[in-house]
Amino acid sequence: MGHIGDRLIEEGRRKRTALVVGLDPDLRYIPDAIRQGADPETGEGAAEAIYAFNRIVIDAVADHVVAVKPQLAYYEIYGASGIGALERTIRYARSKGLLVLNDAKRGDIGPTSAAYARAFLGDGPIAGDMVTVNPFLGSDGYMPFIEAAETAGKVVFVLLKTSNPSSGELQDVKLDGGGALYMKLAEELERLAARSLGTHGYSCVGAVVGGTYPEEARAIRAALKSAIFLVPGYGAQGGSAEALRPFFDVRGEGAVVSSSRAILYAYRSLGDHWSSLSEAEIGRAIGEEAAGAKEAINAVRGL
Amino acid sequence: MGHIGDRLIEEGRRKRTALVVGLDPDLRYIPDAIRQGADPETGEGAAEAIYAFNRIVIDAVADHVVAVKPQLAYYEIYGASGIGALERTIRYARSKGLLVLNDAKRGDIGPTSAAYARAFLGDGPIAGDMVTVNPFLGSDGYMPFIEAAETAGKVVFVLLKTSNPSSGELQDVKLDGGGALYMKLAEELERLAARSLGTHGYSCVGAVVGGTYPEEARAIRAALKSAIFLVPGYGAQGGSAEALRPFFDVRGEGAVVSSSRAILYAYRSLGDHWSSLSEAEIGRAIGEEAAGAKEAINAVRGL
Repeated sequence: MGHIGDRLIEEGRRKRTALVVGLDPDLRYIPDAIRQGADPETGEGAAEAIYAFNRIVIDAVADHVVAVKPQLAYYEIYGASGIGALERTIRYARSKGLLVLNDAKRGDIGPTSAAYARAFLGDGPIAGDMVTVNPFLGSDGYMPFIEAAETAGKVVFVLLKTSNPSSGELQDVKLDGGGALYMKLAEELERLAARSLGTHGYSCVGAVVGGTYPEEARAIRAALKSAIFLVPGYGAQGGSAEALRPFFDVRGEGAVVSSSRAILYAYRSLGDHWSSLSEAEIGRAIGEEAAGAKEAINAVRGL
Repeated sequence: MGHIGDRLIEEGRRKRTALVVGLDPDLRYIPDAIRQGADPETGEGAAEAIYAFNRIVIDAVADHVVAVKPQLAYYEIYGASGIGALERTIRYARSKGLLVLNDAKRGDIGPTSAAYARAFLGDGPIAGDMVTVNPFLGSDGYMPFIEAAETAGKVVFVLLKTSNPSSGELQDVKLDGGGALYMKLAEELERLAARSLGTHGYSCVGAVVGGTYPEEARAIRAALKSAIFLVPGYGAQGGSAEALRPFFDVRGEGAVVSSSRAILYAYRSLGDHWSSLSEAEIGRAIGEEAAGAKEAINAVRGL
């Protein structure tokens, strides 16, 4: 089984990109042309519209990204129909040679985490190549994911320092004896990451470190050298390309940067008539935004 | 809109129970009679077997529980088919007058948490009456769930001190200035819980406190008077009925106790022939185990 830590680095080199595009389909922002014939008020209709939109996005960004990142909530809203759209989206992305990162943020007690790991890193209908995991339940909660990733040659990104404004409330608490909680977690993850290093020095164990927190990223990178970072928060959440420098290693590798709304809905900045744009116009706007994000990030990486 | 904090207390009084049964369907433990005609290796077949099993469980436990608690991982394994089984399970439980608690442990950045809240507390196909939420992302991650619960008269159970062995690694960290992380979180939740109190003194904001940690529960209960506790860990995870005393208030209320594997698979203790038992025998074993758990918990509650 190939090591996806390696494959992620190699795909990034081959395509000259560190960009990941989130697939967070929100029907309110999907143009009429794509909803055509679909009733967005029913699960079936919404699922059709979501899949049609995702196909346009995937076609538009495929040359500019190492992976797509479905955000599970946007599919669960529509129950089985929505998860059916996720299944089809995953298949379509794979048919275009893209890696798939399920942004699921799962985490539970051991046996249930093992079931989630099977769902997302096994060979079932919503399994991808990578998944995000919430460490709040401690190691017996996240180890089933890490063990599944090591076995299957896939990647687990453990939440470490998230991009949202209140992420510090728990993640930054100062511990008795000094240091923030996220640094304690970073040290534990380094120990785990180091045991599954690939050819390029990175592990099956990755970490989510928000692009909105470059100072914290510097400290985390120093403690956690073996983990690829998944960096959300670039774009709509306000993170700038310049702020991304500390996330990368000296070769400009070791991190992938995720952007969702700023790229997905780029066509909305074309004006009030966005809802009546054609599929071709929508795809072009999304593709240009993705290409621009890729180059802005590459400039910071020294490429 | 009725207040589900109230409804949970009133249902518990009416049925004289504080028991919740988890629906964690694991095909390895589902007898042949229930799998009949279904291919458990395909998503469709597995979903049929899961739904058939859940119907038997619901019929067997309906008189002994205030709610059923589907554990989402066991459905996600089978993708859209599995979520379809969840949809049908929720509908069936409701047709039997049961409340539904989705054990989802979701939590994300604000807009995504709002989408999850819509999925689980809205009116969509997998929405129930209650949901479990992971607070690792801080208040802007869990507030969308709490606001949705307040609006819809539903309940959010925030993970506070989970039942698993390693729960202490993050949740118990000692903070600079004294106290454990879970106590800091308990104090914050009390502030939020107090703003949506129902007639019986409990809130739309509940907390998950593992039955395996009675000492911690005592301290949490003192700080967090307004939250109903969801108490997992009784049964297969080793928690005893006696250990449950500190979770309840002086009236023996304010907590619901969840058991999954010990009740769901009670028939496996009947002997090696469990896989060939009839539906009636399976249902009887599950119902007797649930009745026994209800009474053991009631004894501790002073009922």
